[in-house]
Order: sequence, then C-alpha cells, then structure tokens
Amino acid sequence: MDYQSQLLPREKVFRDPVHNYIAVSHQVILDLINTKEFQRLRRVKQLGVTEEVFHGAEHSRFGHSLGVYEIARRICDNFKNDYPSQAAGDGLWNDDERLVTLCAALLHDIGHGAYSHTFEHIFHTNHEAVTAQILTSPSTEVNAVLRQVSPEFPAQVASVIQHTYPNPQVVQIISSQLDADRMDYLLRDAYFTGADYGRFDLARVLRVMRPYQGGIAFTIDGMHAVEDYILSRFQMYQQVYFHPVSRAMEVILDHLLLRAKDLYDNQPIRQEGFRPLLLEPFFNHDWTLVDYLKLDDGVLNTYFLHWADSDDDILRDLARRFLNRKPLKSVEYDSDTTDLLPILRDQIETVGYNITYYTATNDSYDLPYNANPHHSRKPAAEIQLMKADGSTIELSALSTLVAAITGRESGDQRFFFPREMLSQHAESDLFNPIYQEFQTYIKNDQLIHPQGV
Amino acid sequence: MDYQSQLLPREKVFRDPVHNYIAVSHQVILDLINTKEFQRLRRVKQLGVTEEVFHGAEHSRFGHSLGVYEIARRICDNFKNDYPSQAAGDGLWNDDERLVTLCAALLHDIGHGAYSHTFEHIFHTNHEAVTAQILTSPSTEVNAVLRQVSPEFPAQVASVIQHTYPNPQVVQIISSQLDADRMDYLLRDAYFTGADYGRFDLARVLRVMRPYQGGIAFTIDGMHAVEDYILSRFQMYQQVYFHPVSRAMEVILDHLLLRAKDLYDNQPIRQEGFRPLLLEPFFNHDWTLVDYLKLDDGVLNTYFLHWADSDDDILRDLARRFLNRKPLKSVEYDSDTTDLLPILRDQIETVGYNITYYTATNDSYDLPYNANPHHSRKPAAEIQLMKADGSTIELSALSTLVAAITGRESGDQRFFFPREMLSQHAESDLFNPIYQEFQTYIKNDQLIHPQGV
Amino acid sequence: MDYQSQLLPREKVFRDPVHNYIAVSHQVILDLINTKEFQRLRRVKQLGVTEEVFHGAEHSRFGHSLGVYEIARRICDNFKNDYPSQAAGDGLWNDDERLVTLCAALLHDIGHGAYSHTFEHIFHTNHEAVTAQILTSPSTEVNAVLRQVSPEFPAQVASVIQHTYPNPQVVQIISSQLDADRMDYLLRDAYFTGADYGRFDLARVLRVMRPYQGGIAFTIDGMHAVEDYILSRFQMYQQVYFHPVSRAMEVILDHLLLRAKDLYDNQPIRQEGFRPLLLEPFFNHDWTLVDYLKLDDGVLNTYFLHWADSDDDILRDLARRFLNRKPLKSVEYDSDTTDLLPILRDQIETVGYNITYYTATNDSYDLPYNANPHHSRKPAAEIQLMKADGSTIELSALSTLVAAITGRESGDQRFFFPREMLSQHAESDLFNPIYQEFQTYIKNDQLIHPQGV
Amino acid sequence: MDYQSQLLPREKVFRDPVHNYIAVSHQVILDLINTKEFQRLRRVKQLGVTEEVFHGAEHSRFGHSLGVYEIARRICDNFKNDYPSQAAGDGLWNDDERLVTLCAALLHDIGHGAYSHTFEHIFHTNHEAVTAQILTSPSTEVNAVLRQVSPEFPAQVASVIQHTYPNPQVVQIISSQLDADRMDYLLRDAYFTGADYGRFDLARVLRVMRPYQGGIAFTIDGMHAVEDYILSRFQMYQQVYFHPVSRAMEVILDHLLLRAKDLYDNQPIRQEGFRPLLLEPFFNHDWTLVDYLKLDDGVLNTYFLHWADSDDDILRDLARRFLNRKPLKSVEYDSDTTDLLPILRDQIETVGYNITYYTATNDSYDLPYNANPHHSRKPAAEIQLMKADGSTIELSALSTLVAAITGRESGDQRFFFPREMLSQHAESDLFNPIYQEFQTYIKNDQLIHPQGV
Repeated sequence: MDYQSQLLPREKVFRDPVHNYIAVSHQVILDLINTKEFQRLRRVKQLGVTEEVFHGAEHSRFGHSLGVYEIARRICDNFKNDYPSQAAGDGLWNDDERLVTLCAALLHDIGHGAYSHTFEHIFHTNHEAVTAQILTSPSTEVNAVLRQVSPEFPAQVASVIQHTYPNPQVVQIISSQLDADRMDYLLRDAYFTGADYGRFDLARVLRVMRPYQGGIAFTIDGMHAVEDYILSRFQMYQQVYFHPVSRAMEVILDHLLLRAKDLYDNQPIRQEGFRPLLLEPFFNHDWTLVDYLKLDDGVLNTYFLHWADSDDDILRDLARRFLNRKPLKSVEYDSDTTDLLPILRDQIETVGYNITYYTATNDSYDLPYNANPHHSRKPAAEIQLMKADGSTIELSALSTLVAAITGRESGDQRFFFPREMLSQHAESDLFNPIYQEFQTYIKNDQLIHPQGV
Repeated sequence: MDYQSQLLPREKVFRDPVHNYIAVSHQVILDLINTKEFQRLRRVKQLGVTEEVFHGAEHSRFGHSLGVYEIARRICDNFKNDYPSQAAGDGLWNDDERLVTLCAALLHDIGHGAYSHTFEHIFHTNHEAVTAQILTSPSTEVNAVLRQVSPEFPAQVASVIQHTYPNPQVVQIISSQLDADRMDYLLRDAYFTGADYGRFDLARVLRVMRPYQGGIAFTIDGMHAVEDYILSRFQMYQQVYFHPVSRAMEVILDHLLLRAKDLYDNQPIRQEGFRPLLLEPFFNHDWTLVDYLKLDDGVLNTYFLHWADSDDDILRDLARRFLNRKPLKSVEYDSDTTDLLPILRDQIETVGYNITYYTATNDSYDLPYNANPHHSRKPAAEIQLMKADGSTIELSALSTLVAAITGRESGDQRFFFPREMLSQHAESDLFNPIYQEFQTYIKNDQLIHPQGV
Repeated sequence: MDYQSQLLPREKVFRDPVHNYIAVSHQVILDLINTKEFQRLRRVKQLGVTEEVFHGAEHSRFGHSLGVYEIARRICDNFKNDYPSQAAGDGLWNDDERLVTLCAALLHDIGHGAYSHTFEHIFHTNHEAVTAQILTSPSTEVNAVLRQVSPEFPAQVASVIQHTYPNPQVVQIISSQLDADRMDYLLRDAYFTGADYGRFDLARVLRVMRPYQGGIAFTIDGMHAVEDYILSRFQMYQQVYFHPVSRAMEVILDHLLLRAKDLYDNQPIRQEGFRPLLLEPFFNHDWTLVDYLKLDDGVLNTYFLHWADSDDDILRDLARRFLNRKPLKSVEYDSDTTDLLPILRDQIETVGYNITYYTATNDSYDLPYNANPHHSRKPAAEIQLMKADGSTIELSALSTLVAAITGRESGDQRFFFPREMLSQHAESDLFNPIYQEFQTYIKNDQLIHPQGV
Repeated sequence: MDYQSQLLPREKVFRDPVHNYIAVSHQVILDLINTKEFQRLRRVKQLGVTEEVFHGAEHSRFGHSLGVYEIARRICDNFKNDYPSQAAGDGLWNDDERLVTLCAALLHDIGHGAYSHTFEHIFHTNHEAVTAQILTSPSTEVNAVLRQVSPEFPAQVASVIQHTYPNPQVVQIISSQLDADRMDYLLRDAYFTGADYGRFDLARVLRVMRPYQGGIAFTIDGMHAVEDYILSRFQMYQQVYFHPVSRAMEVILDHLLLRAKDLYDNQPIRQEGFRPLLLEPFFNHDWTLVDYLKLDDGVLNTYFLHWADSDDDILRDLARRFLNRKPLKSVEYDSDTTDLLPILRDQIETVGYNITYYTATNDSYDLPYNANPHHSRKPAAEIQLMKADGSTIELSALSTLVAAITGRESGDQRFFFPREMLSQHAESDLFNPIYQEFQTYIKNDQLIHPQGV
C-alpha cells in the first residue's frame, strides 16, 4: 500500500484532558509526531509568561498541536459522513483532502519558538516563515516524512498554512475566525488556566459546521453555539490573554533580552566560563534553522539563571525579576493622560532607574470578530450562517451580541514602571517627595491629572 | 500587629483549575510564595517524564504546593468550626497550630529538584534533607520569612515535615495515608493527565475528617468516601505512575546521566566551548545548597541538547533518545523467567549495544494501603474510622475492597531493552538470526521460555 | 436556647448535583423543609413543559428552593466574614438578618402550583399571593414553624419576598437582577437540560458580591464574572426558555385547560364515574388554600389521562396531544406579516380545526438586563459595580456586551397551528389545494408574503 | 426504500446531560420514540423513592431508555468500523444486527410501571412480561411500528430482551454484566443524584469492547477501565441504591399499597365521590395491558393525596407519611440479634402501632460481580478479557479488586419501625418505660443485646 493511505494496524490514541482521546490512524501522522521537530514543541509553552498569573497554564504547544489535529480530524469525519462530494465543484467535501488537512493542522505551529512573540520582537525572527521552512527544507525530519507522501506534498501542506492552497475549505478549517486552531486553544487554555470563560460547546459547533462553495459555513440553527464561541473568545482575551500582570512579566522578559542584546553588541557576555552558546547566532544576526530548533523555554531560562549572577546591574536585576516573578506595576492611560508619561518617566529616572529598561507602554488590542476581514491585516474568513435554502448570512447581521463587538478593538493602553515607585519610603529618604508626587498621578488603577495641579 | 497574625488587607486568591481558588490571607504565606526558592518550583515538573506518555502532565510542583496548602487550609477551617479545642489535651483542634500547618503544607516539597528521583539515584542527593536545609539555613529567603515569625519557627515547620512535631494532628494533615499532599497530587495528576481514575470526593473526605487524641480520624459514615480515595490512589498507580513507557523513559534518563557522570569522571566533557557548569559541582561530588537551587528541568534539558551533539556515541544517542522521545521497549518477567535475562543481555550485546546503558530491570511496587504502617519503612499513620461512641476501627477491617489490597504490593518487574531488538531486519543482516531468536522469548508483553527450547 | 438560634447537633447536608452539598445548621430551616407544603414542591416541576424538549429537565422546585437557600447561606457567610457591620447604618452586614434571609430564600417559590404560568392564565390564580398566604396563614405548617421564631416573623419573611422589607440588602439577595434565585435557576436548569450556556462562575460572583448602603454591589474587579452571568442568562432565554417547541406544548396545555373549563361551565365533565375532584373548586371559581395545595403536576396529568378518553372530540384530542407529545407547529411572524394571520386561520378552519383551540399567537420576550429597572413593570435593582474609592458605576456603562442587550427586549412572535397543515396530503383529498396554498406562506421557518400573490 | 433502512433526511439529536447528544438517524427509532407507550416513560421515575434521599434523582425512565439506545448505537458504530464481519461465523460484527439491537436497547424497560418493584410486590405484576406484551401485542403503537419492519420483527426484539435471540453479541450488548443498560444507569443515576461514585470512563470501556465468537469481550489493555466500572457499580449500590432511608420510604409505600388493597378487599374505598378508578382493575385482579399503561407515578400520588384524607386511620397516616416524607427509622441486625425482633415488635404493638403496617424487615443484597453467572438466578455473561493471541481470561482472575467482591453478596439486613419509638416521651406518658426499654436495644445504628439483660 502506498504510504499516504497506510493505516496503523490498530488506531493509536493519546489521552488528552481536553478532548479525552486523540486518535491517530494514519502512519504519516504518527511518523510526524515522532519527528524531533515535533517533539521539540513539548519544550515550548503555549502561553509563555501567562503561567506567572494563571499557574496552571504550563501546557506546551505539543498538546495544542495534537488538539488542533484532533478537531480537524473530527471535522473531516463529519464532512465525509454528512456532506460527501458527489461531483467535482459541487462545494461538498472531497475526502482526498483529508491528509493535507490533518498534516497542516498538526504542523501549523511547528515554527513557534521559545517565548515566541517577545523573542521575535527582539531578534526579528518570524515563526510563520520558520514553519514553512521546517516543512519544506530537506534537512528536517518533518520534511522527510512529508516527502515520502509525494514530492509536492511538503509545499502543499505549507500552502494550507499560508492560505494559498486552492481549496478554501481546507484553508478555513485551519485558519479562519472559527477554525480548529482557535477552537482548540480556547478550550485548552481555559482548561489549564482554570478560567472557565473559554468553554463553548465544541460538539455542537462541529455538528453545525459544513462545507460549501465558499469554504466553511454553519447551519443557521447553530447560530447560538457560534455566538457563544465568539463570546468565549472575547472573554478569554479580556480575562486571560490581556491580563496586566502577564503583560508586565512580558515587558520584563522583553527588556531582559534587549539588555542582553545591547550588552552583547558591545562585547560578548562572559561569566566564569559561561557563554550563551545557543543564543549567540541570534546576537550575531546570523542564525540557521538548526540554531532556531535548538532554542526552547528551558534554554532561555538557563541563560537567565546565569545572568542572575551577572556583573551588569541591569541584566542581573531583570533576570532576577523574571525568574523570581517580580512584575512591574502598571496603570491604564488614554489620550487625555498621555501627556503625563514624560513627567512620570522623569521621576522614575530621577530616583535612579534606567527608563529604557524599567518603563514601557503597551497596548493589548484584539478584534474579537471581524465581519469584513478582507480589510484587515490578516485575512480571516468571516463567519457565514447557511439558511435552509442554501443562502448565507454573515453572523453579526443576526447576533446582537456579536454585532456589539464586531470590528471594535477591545483592550487598553498601560504604562509599566517599577513597583517600588508605589511603596512607602522613609521620610528620611532623599527621594521621598518624588515618590509622593508620583503617587498623586494614579487613582483606581488609572493615570489621572492630579487635582489642584 | 505581630507578623505571624498579620492578615492581608484583602484575601488574595490564585485561580487553580483543581481547587477553583486558592485563598491566602496570611502575610507570611504570601511572602513565602514570593521567595525565589518557592518560585523555582515553577521550573520543576511534578511528574517528571510522565508527560512523555500523558502529554497533559506538564504541571509543576508550584501548583501542587499551592494545592496542598489549600487543602490544609480547608482542613484547618473545618476543624476550627466543628472541633475547636476547649481545654488542653482534649484531642480537639487548637487553631494556634494553623500557621505551622499551612507553612509545612506549602513547603513540604520545596527541596525537590529536577527529575527528582532519577537525579537522586545518580548523584546521591536527597530532597528531604534539602527541604530541611532550605527551611533552616539562614541563607535562604524562605528561612528569612519563617524566622520573622520566631527564631524557632523554621525548625518547627521542618519538624512537621520530618514527623517529629509533637502534635500528631499537624503531622498527619501533612503526611499520613490520607493527607493533604496525597489528596492534592491525586486530584491534580488526574486533572492534568486526563486519567479520571484519580478523582475522589474531596469535599466529602474533608467533611468526615476530624481531629482526635491520636491524630486524624474519619467519622464512620464517611467510610465509602475514604474507601473511594484508596481505590483512586491504587488505580492511579496502576494506570499512570507505573506506566511501562514512563519507566522506559526514566531508564533512558537515568542512563544518560550515568553516562555523563562516567565520562566526566575520566575527563570534563567539553564541546566547542560548552561546559555543563551548573552540573559540575555534582560531578565533582562537591555541591552546595546554592548549586542545588540553580538546577531545574530546563537546565538539564539544555545540557542534553548539547550532549545530543557530543562526540561520545553513547552520550549522544541517549540524549537524542531522551529529547526526541524514543523509549526503550520492555517486557514483564517474574521469578520463573529471571534466568532468561542473561541470555537476552548477551544477544543485545552481540548486536552491538553496551548493556550497561541500553538495558535495565526495574520494578514498580507500591503499597496501596498499609493497615500496620509502623512495620513499614516510611511511617504513615493507618486510617482510623470513628464510631458514634468515639471508639475507632481501622479502615481495612470494614472495607472488603481495601482489605483486598492492604499490605499487598502491587506492580510488576520489567526488563528494558532497545526497541530495535524487535524490528524487522534484512535477511542479509549478519545479526538477523539473533534478532529472530530474541523475539522468541517474548509473547503477550511477557518474557517466556520459548517452546521447544 | 431560643428556637431561632437553635443549631442542629451536627450540620445536616443534602447531596446536590449543582452545589455538591446543601448545608443546614438551623433547626428552623430543617423544620421548614420537613413541612408538607415544602415537600409538595417535589411534585411540581421547575420548568413545566420544557422537559418535552430537553428531556433531562425533570427537576422539581424542591431542589431549586434548596439551592436558592444554599446560595443565600454562602452569601451570608461571606458577608459575615468580609463585611461585618461595626455600627448601625454603616452599610455593612448585620448577621442578625441571616435567618430572615435564609427563610425567604428557602420559601420564595412555595406558592408555585402545577404548570404555574399556564394554570394561572386559565384559572386566575397568583403564585405570589399564594406564597404570602402560605407564610402568613395560621393553617399551614410553614406558618407554625415561622411563628415559633416570633409572632411577627411570618410577615417579615413575606415582606422580603414582596420587596417591602426595610433592609435592601436582604431584599436584593433574594430578588434583584443578580440574586440567589436567578443564580440557582440558571445553574440548575443548565445542569438538568444539559445546555451548558447557563453556566457561569458562581464562586467568583459570590466572592465579588458585597453589601453597601444601597443594597448589594459587586467589586469592580469582578466585572467580567458579572458580565458572564448576564450573558449566560441571555443565552438560556434564547436557547431554552423560549424554545418554540416548549411554547407549542404550552399552547396545547393552555388550550386543553381552557377547553375543560369551557366544557365545565356548561356542565360538569363526567366519564364513567370520573370527576376531576381536585380541579372542581377552580372550575367553580371558589377555591381555598387547602384546595390549591392539593394540586400538583401528577394530579393534572391524571385528569388528562381520563380526558384522553373523553367523548368531547377536542378535549380528547388535546389531552392526547399533550400526553403523547404532539406539539403544534409554529412560524415566526412580524409586523409585516401580521396581516396574513386571518388568512391562515381561515384555511385552518376550512379544513376542520376549531381555531380557538388549535391556533395561537405567542411572543416570548425578556429583558436580559435593565439598567433602569425602576421604570419597568417589576422592580429589580440594577447591577452596581463598586470602585476602590467606594463610588459605584452601573454595569452597562462599563460592559460593551451588556450595553448591547440592555433594555432591549429579545424574543420573537410566533403563530402556532396543527402540524397536519404542513403534511403531504393525497391528491384526492378535497382540501388538498388549501394545504398547498397554506404552505406557500411559509419559508425558512417564517411567515412570508408568497411571491406572485 | 424499505422502512427498516429508511434514514431521516437529517440526523435528529436529543440534548442529553449525560451523553451530550443522543443521535437518531433511523425513521424506525424516531417513530418508536413518538409512540404513546414510549412517551409514558416520562411519567415513571427511574429510581422511584430514591429522590426522597437524593433530591436530584427525579429523572424518568424516558431519558434512561434514550441513553441505553445511545450507548448501543455507539457500540454498533465501533464494531462496524473496527470489527466488521468478513464471513458468516467469523465471530465479528454483522451490521445487519444493528436495528434489532437499537430497538431492543430503546425498548428494554418499556414495561416498567409506576414505583415498579413495590407495585409488583403488592399486585403481582411483572414488568418483563409486560415489556414482551407491549412489543408483541397488536394493540400497541410500539408493535405497529415494529411490525412495519417485518412481521417477525416484534418477536425478534422481544427475544433479545429475553436472552433467547441466537446471536449472543446482540443479547450481551443489552444484557450482561457490562451492558448498555448498566452503563447508562450508573452514569445517569450518578449524574442526577450527584453521587460521583457511579462515574467511570465510558469512552474507554467502549473503545476496548469487542465482538467475538462467545459474545462480547474486552481487550486486555482495557482491564483497568473495566475494573473501574465494576467498582463504580459496587459503590453505587452501597451508597445510593441500598440507602437505608430510601428503603424506609419504600417500606411505607409498600405498606400503604398493602393497606389500600386489604381495605378494598373488604369494600371499595370511597370518599366523597372519589374512586381510585385506574387502580381498581388491579384491586380486582383483573387488569389488561390498557389498564397497566394508564398507571404512572402521578396517578398513584394523586390517589395518595385522596387517601391522606381517608377515614381509615392507617391508610390516612401512611399516605401522609409517604407524601410528606416521614420515613421509618431502621437498625441493622444479623443472625445474632434476629431473636430480638419479636421483643421489639411486641413493644411497638404495645404502644399502639399495627405491626403489619408499621414494621418490616428488609435486606438489600446485590452480587457486584459474578464470575460464574450460569449458576445464579438471572443469567448474565461474565466479563471476558481478550489477550493479543485471541485467548480470553475472566476478569476476576486478573483483578485483585474484582476478585475481592466476586460472588460475594454485599448489603445488610435492617429492621424498620416508627421513628416515634426513639423520641423523648414525657415522664407522665404511660408507655414511657416501654420506649426507654426499646432504646436499650439499639446502639451505633445496630440492634444489640442490652448489657446486663
């Protein structure tokens, strides 16, 4: 039998706390899971520093990748049973698309690195480009498996992830406003954080999902299940992903990596025989895929442990704040109070902090649902509901709640600074009046114009 | 107000997926959580290599430690409400014991290191001794917090963990056959692995738990809830903790560390500027508490990443097997088949494996419940049920199911070897007959005397 | 000890699938539960005919009443611990209010009768008035228990339920837009129907709830938990309480009781010795509290069983439709299509149905949240969020989602008719053209103006 | 298309809190659900008087019947996918058996009446015989549907339920020691009572279930899941089904019906125009299937409501005890204390109770697992585990825990009597010394020989 159709003698299952079981019957899928690039995902946390606030959120991208695969698999099963294509171009499901769908689902995140977004910010890497490289570079085990299916298969799988695959059904299963990726991460992050807001009725959403000419739609009797998913997503952003303390830890991480890079630009960081060997290619702006694949959360943390004993005051202090969880403090500000930021920075500098490394502004905005995604940066298909007669209607046209949050960014702008600015300080402290003045600018977690000023 | 009675202005809660909320109202507890030694627990996985089989089990000792604290806190609350001591020696609960109980609960695992049991096996460290050291050594932040309560407090907390504290109620809340530690880890490991077997009715067990002269007992109407806990524990051992593939990964880890140590005994391992700096004190048999507290799972994994490129064939291969999850294969054996092990080892050696590093035997036995714990190695109070008239009866005297597993070790002995021994090998392979013979010794996952031999 | 302070020797618990345990420690509460009026609630379903759509929803008002009590108890516990009043009028919690609060919570629904709303519609009974009567009439066991507390106590408990009790905190715990009643029924109805939409984070809502001068407020950091509750409530109305098939069964029940009453007004319904003895006082417009308390779901169903063999065609048919679950069919209509209703009724009449009993219009509207409740029919306090400085802000001013549904009625208008109107009918059927024409008015579950007409 | 193969245009689902969704795709199944005999199951509680102890347990046999159907459906799906028969007699699954299996699953309990076991005890009805009658009598709607499949089909379905169907796989799916019936009721009763003990890993049990020549077996790697199911069942019996207070309420119900029958044997019970019309055929020992199908819980309760005003003291009192939940009290006794029962009955009679109606003995024994079921009263296949080589081994040979409870009856014998015997009685009460003596025979919920007597 050819490789792509090869089934395991008996279905293999992975016990999963979110989906109960993840079932694998294709040899190709099992071989992909067993590659070293895929196993590396065990060493990269799904939510980065979020675990500093929600301590249960220690789960890795490995489980999430399996979960996306499993949801995609269930979608294929449903489509095969309920909407099998009878003739080319009839807008129904052609089960020959199954393998490329499952592989794309499993591998969509394989290029994610340690502390992804922050790392990318400092070192200008790009996990999407790396994902494509892992799939198509002949040097990887993943590519070797995919190539065995056919010479074109690696590029096909990559094109699904890059939204250029011709069949929009396959693309939208993996990436749209209601795709296997988002469904898994909402449920999984909710499960591990313990924040129930992320829960929605997966079984029902899968039941009402269906293929059509334009890609994926949802039968109209499933409107409420889909609406509930959008609300869950909105709430997870508000409650978990945008949590001010997570963002404060992210600022520290960002500034810690920045400090290391700034120092290294002057001279390599050496401490009693210690060299951050695996980071050096990135400091040198000269890294390869092999270098990239060696990094993981544990490697970075190991370097931070060394830097916590560095001679450089700032590097040492930031490393300790990160390892020992000493977040910055933050306050919300808006266009009315932006003018106060220079004043606050001055005060912070006066009492001795380098404001490049000890302050930051940061906004966290997300579009909870986009009724017209083609105008936004990242294309993501809007959600279409299908009526009995086959016509479709866009979700926000029907749901008051979804309409209320459609196309509206949601989040806040915050200013981050050392928690010490808010502490009590001895009367004898030279800077005491500065601390006192600083504190008049803050009320109810917000920046304010002090009264009488 | 003195430090030990100091309450937070408002109770602080940690969102926990197992207990929903973990509530902290003492300043002492919050300060302990914020020490660097406690934060380090975030970087040490609770179940070590178990995540290689149950991929959800990526949770750290940090959450478990909070969980044990939370259960202990609920026990104290119940005891204070329902069984407050009226007079010294009346066998009821004196709430002055609360703080020492909570601190012991929170800190009972603080000495655990990376891949605890395996690491201890190779480097002869001892996490219980380290725990005591962290509590009592003036160099730690934990000690500094505890000392603030009173000079004797660090030693008192340590004595609870070491079972020498005078009040048996406090000791048994932390350590007995039905203690806060076991209750949390069963529920938590069940939650994260997804193996439901570990669930039991915590609320009911806590309701029927009560103090008495001899320590902790359970009112007799709670017999079934207690029985269910014992069964859950038994099942988790059978299904999760003793899983043959986990044990196989543990063998690889053990042999990998052993190989590194053996090599290092000859000459320091150097690779293009790489030195396992944080492990060197352990290779040198000369480590301090500071050295110990720098190790975590990520540090070891970082070294394994380097060793995966080592020039030493065995070190390199074992590191890769560990990182890329290539477990050994295993079979069960017993006293009837032990005599076959030398034959198998010979065959394995013949085809080219160093049997020191590529084979192992390993038994996993646990006493699910011990009706007479004073005769066992580790003292752990038996479970007493209290009747209406105040007399007690030991659990296994009442429960048929518990009696069935009392004092009976449960587990199996397995022989581990390279999976390649079971593969198909080319007819032209010189060693082909050896592989074929090897396979005749194995049937239905067990070692057998081949028929006709 | 006086009766009102009398505690049980040991707390008694009821196992509850929603709240795990319901804990009773007051003798008064246990005595109330043991009255025959309270036990009667076991025979009255919480959701009436909803079980015809969600078959799990067979739970009675008994469990709900215990659940409301339990939530109120937890609120009292929290308030007592976290916000104890120090001085009269300080806006904090005076625990002397506990007993009246618990009794009102337990008894708030005690006047509900069989198939409450429908029965009241036909027989002009009023469950709120009956509740007050049960509490204050000397003939009931409930009153006898309450009277033992003090002569004024029955009237006090009644005044809480009628919103005239002086302390707004007590009133709002029992009845407001986020009260113990609504919290329990959402969770309970979600649990028994299996419709997850009703779930919200009860533990968190209770944590952020607090007393203040104006009644009950919520600390502002709990905004998202409160928002989630409002959304859950909205979704339960959309998905469960307004389900068109439930409403169709309710129409049948309503018309069945109406037919019985219409017949009885002419002459008593007799069938071979059968008399609906327990309903007769209601047919005769001359019923007492004793009569009211004898009715329950089973009594009505028993009479329906007899009527299913009646000589009256309509009574017999409606009874069978109800017992054997043959709902009417329905379509949505709006102001544009109201003009079609007379045409449809004519057609239905032409083929032989009495339109008084076989058609109906019915709207289901609910105000999901009301920011200005004093202008609405039933007073219900709006939800206030309290900032750090003690000032309050109304929920919809802060939550985009809640604002989207505030003060906006949500629901639909439907026209109900016999399912037979939509069936296939033989060509030879005299009325075949009428059925065919009827069907042209309906498309996608909605009433339409047929094209070309 | 012929009726038996006719599928619905779109799968219909019932929302179920236990199985999430119950999916129906056969027209036959939907038609069966819509029969009046099946709808009647909504009016018969699954657990009878158990709701008097576990108030959530108000669920009817309707949901259970759907649940058994759903589990059977999943089993058929798994068997069809994983073990499709290739040739007659190969011991694998022939999917032509699906419809008879699903019908038998759905209808297995259709003959259950109101308060089944107690009613049968008094009126000598037999729900199994009635089930067969409903299936095969031409007068029922159920028979009409089944007959449409084929003339022999009703008898075939009945033969599955009666264990005489030739294919043991079909029989054992419906009735064995690990069948769809037991799996559903354990999970369902656990869900509604809130007693978690009944939970087990249904998904895993279904995964390891397989057809073989002898019927149904379980692959050996599923041993622990099967073991856990047996333990759950054992625990539900201990904790829920044998609860002493349920049994006490059952005794009252039994004696209430007995008293009514005894009275009726003398002369019809008449009260101001009230006649228990629907019970009369049973009093007269002359009932038909039509009579039987009119009875439900509500009908009996309606008669009890009338009897609660009867002139007969005993009938009136027992009816009130039942409706208002006044259970008898009970104590455990054994062969050592049986001799005390006459003494106690004498005392009870002396103070004025008719011991026929106010006392009872009752044992509750169940065989949790039977390794050799052919020797027991009701045949039920033992549980076979299948090894890799196809050989089987009986469960208790492998599981220590199951062995511990195999073939061992578990339960207790209790003596029931009026709670008033244990109350405090005034010193002036003539019978005071008798009450006092009575109480000396009881200690720790057990009958004892009083010391010094």
